[in-house]
Amino acid sequence: MPQHTLPGERRTEPTGSLEDLLTEHQYTAAAAWLNEHAAHVIADELARIPPDTAAVAFRMLAKDDALEVFEELEPGDQQALLEGVRGPRFSELVEGMDPDDRARMLREVPAKVAKRVLAGLSTSERQMTAALLGYPDGSVGHYMTPEVVALAEDLSVAAALEVVRAKGGEAETVYTLPVVNSSRRLRGVAELRELVLSDPTAMVSDLVSTAPTYMFATDPAEDAARLMSEANLLNLPIVDSEKRLVGMLTFDDAIEVLEEAESEDVARQAGSAPWEGHYMAVGVLRLARTRAVWLSLLLLAATLTVGVTQAFEETLAQVAALALFIPMLIGAGGNAGAQAATACVRAIAVGEIRMSDLGRVIWREARVGFLLGTMLAVLGLGIGAVFVDIPIAVVVGISLILICAWAATIGGTMPLLARKVGIDPAVVSAPMVTTLVDATGLVIYFVTARLVLGI
Amino acid sequence: MPQHTLPGERRTEPTGSLEDLLTEHQYTAAAAWLNEHAAHVIADELARIPPDTAAVAFRMLAKDDALEVFEELEPGDQQALLEGVRGPRFSELVEGMDPDDRARMLREVPAKVAKRVLAGLSTSERQMTAALLGYPDGSVGHYMTPEVVALAEDLSVAAALEVVRAKGGEAETVYTLPVVNSSRRLRGVAELRELVLSDPTAMVSDLVSTAPTYMFATDPAEDAARLMSEANLLNLPIVDSEKRLVGMLTFDDAIEVLEEAESEDVARQAGSAPWEGHYMAVGVLRLARTRAVWLSLLLLAATLTVGVTQAFEETLAQVAALALFIPMLIGAGGNAGAQAATACVRAIAVGEIRMSDLGRVIWREARVGFLLGTMLAVLGLGIGAVFVDIPIAVVVGISLILICAWAATIGGTMPLLARKVGIDPAVVSAPMVTTLVDATGLVIYFVTARLVLGI
Repeated sequence: MPQHTLPGERRTEPTGSLEDLLTEHQYTAAAAWLNEHAAHVIADELARIPPDTAAVAFRMLAKDDALEVFEELEPGDQQALLEGVRGPRFSELVEGMDPDDRARMLREVPAKVAKRVLAGLSTSERQMTAALLGYPDGSVGHYMTPEVVALAEDLSVAAALEVVRAKGGEAETVYTLPVVNSSRRLRGVAELRELVLSDPTAMVSDLVSTAPTYMFATDPAEDAARLMSEANLLNLPIVDSEKRLVGMLTFDDAIEVLEEAESEDVARQAGSAPWEGHYMAVGVLRLARTRAVWLSLLLLAATLTVGVTQAFEETLAQVAALALFIPMLIGAGGNAGAQAATACVRAIAVGEIRMSDLGRVIWREARVGFLLGTMLAVLGLGIGAVFVDIPIAVVVGISLILICAWAATIGGTMPLLARKVGIDPAVVSAPMVTTLVDATGLVIYFVTARLVLGI
Repeated sequence: MPQHTLPGERRTEPTGSLEDLLTEHQYTAAAAWLNEHAAHVIADELARIPPDTAAVAFRMLAKDDALEVFEELEPGDQQALLEGVRGPRFSELVEGMDPDDRARMLREVPAKVAKRVLAGLSTSERQMTAALLGYPDGSVGHYMTPEVVALAEDLSVAAALEVVRAKGGEAETVYTLPVVNSSRRLRGVAELRELVLSDPTAMVSDLVSTAPTYMFATDPAEDAARLMSEANLLNLPIVDSEKRLVGMLTFDDAIEVLEEAESEDVARQAGSAPWEGHYMAVGVLRLARTRAVWLSLLLLAATLTVGVTQAFEETLAQVAALALFIPMLIGAGGNAGAQAATACVRAIAVGEIRMSDLGRVIWREARVGFLLGTMLAVLGLGIGAVFVDIPIAVVVGISLILICAWAATIGGTMPLLARKVGIDPAVVSAPMVTTLVDATGLVIYFVTARLVLGI
């Protein structure tokens, strides 16, 4: 395994899969494959092949490489591999992991496995891991590294660089150096860059920013990661409730937090729960389970449309041609609502829309929906006239204007309202908006038909 | 403006908006507001208020603060502000920007403004900017910084640190130090961390990884950013076609690239085009334009459903109650298809699904859809029996199984097929899948009704 990846590796499909080589017992070729690929590529491959086969490949890796690959895996896959590793190899693996990665794995594995892992650790590593495990799920404490090089306030630059040299080997990063007072309270942050570029006789206290950015270990990890991304911070010091330094969130973990949040939002916006693990390796039943609850709820909510249509059964019986346009009209409403909801969920996520903007968002989306509806009405008039006649076409056109304006307004409003009552805005978006708009859109359509056609 | 942000600032709503203070001519309070907030918060506020008012606030900032805020703005907002700045202030601003930020702004502004900016630059800055402008849109060259501290192969660690001290002041980062030969070809990468922690008499050549990760300046920026995220790289060296070092993609620009890609994917998945700028500041007409094309195309595609319903008009006339379940059935199909499409688009984006997996994805999604359809069928039987009668309920149940299996299969397949023919998978997902499934779902429903009811 080379220490780094060759370019182009991500853009071309791998030739001859690791799985094929292993099932055909071509171990020399498999070893060569492992030797040629970077840790994250090997981890991706191991995640998608059966655990038994993956364990064979894993045992072929050298000690350091195995650790690097192991840390790239998701907790579920880590557990599967751990079960196939025994003796000194097991201790090396769990002892060598970064404490934050280890704590994250331990949260996900069964208690029996967790106990075995903790028992295999040295005292200092076990203490650090236990501390991380104490933070709530999804908090910064869950993702931060506790191995930080902190500087005392009263050091010279030369002395500070000596501290970095002495303690830097074990820390995950030495580029951001929190400065603390004698009771470990965070006083500022120094950058290694500034230390290296400064006069060695200067004092660290002259270099630090005295109002450093930090977050509490119990704060949501996503907030910390998004702050780092917006303020372009490489690492973020994390403190306890008394402002004592307890760790640091590093940029690679921040990126991971952001990607997990995106995956979750994307899944939620389509009415699924996020799942843990590799798409190709997750069981079909488990995949179905991530979608089952919402799909059922949406079907039950859609019962509204059955009720509405039944209420207008007489109208439909008088003008049977009205049925032709039901799918098209509710489709248009659903699409307009989903567009607005998606735009607003994203704008909320990146901080562009605040709660106080509710009125303005409604007014914006109502106008956007009206404009789009008017445009669709022109098309709808044509379609209605071609398939049936002018009066029906007029009904379709007017309905499109009203439905689009209504759908966009609802789509833009619901995510903000959800947030107001403490629900993740992504949860209420596209499919829920669509189902709601389906039923109300039908009412708009049938009432318009009655008024225009005089029935 | 403090150098760093206070915690909690992102989670609480700002009290008293900058815009209100400025329109009420409370300049002292506005200055205090500017002094209290971090650059990215000020930039966010300027982006959402009218350009004239924003320009007033911008002129109140100190020189260094103004530059920092300016770099946080999107190109469109940068242009609006530049128009209100004259004389030495203008030169300071454009000269002080990072070359990559400047080049990105110049691509977006009208030629007249770009010319004025280039004319105001020193020769060296102008040359760097012109070089960046030569790279294709969306390429790494567009986002990289050309100001890199490179090391010669034959330096000692002490000498290398001297180079960092001498040249590091101007570079965007000194943490990743590309090592080049005499013709500037990339030979390896050294980390500042390793230099600091090593014996000063050691040779740089002993520390570098000889097979460094790099990308070509013409490669897509998203590929480079995703590689950095997967391999946990802080910075990525960028080379020209002859492998000569031309710049480096830094982690903050990589995060920006990833966020832009996510925003674009999210917008596309709801059938919108992405837009440039702040949601609250974008004009209603422009917002409508991002959605108009897809909404129209989807309406035209929905004409298929009108045709299908018309083809089965006789069936509908014989059993009018069939109309009641049309919205519910196509809704369920649309939701199942959207769930599958979203899961697959995301899995493709993060590299979990490859082209060669097409067959397996189809088989997985068909089974997931069948399972979900069977579950919905139980609910559908009940709903059908309550609203109409048992035979209709059976039609609804069977249709739900078939429609869900079909929708999930189509939803899982289309993104991969799109990628195969070179279209962004996100474009074809949810709404397009939904519309396609609407029409085919109706066929399934009516044919099932005919067979079960014997009409």
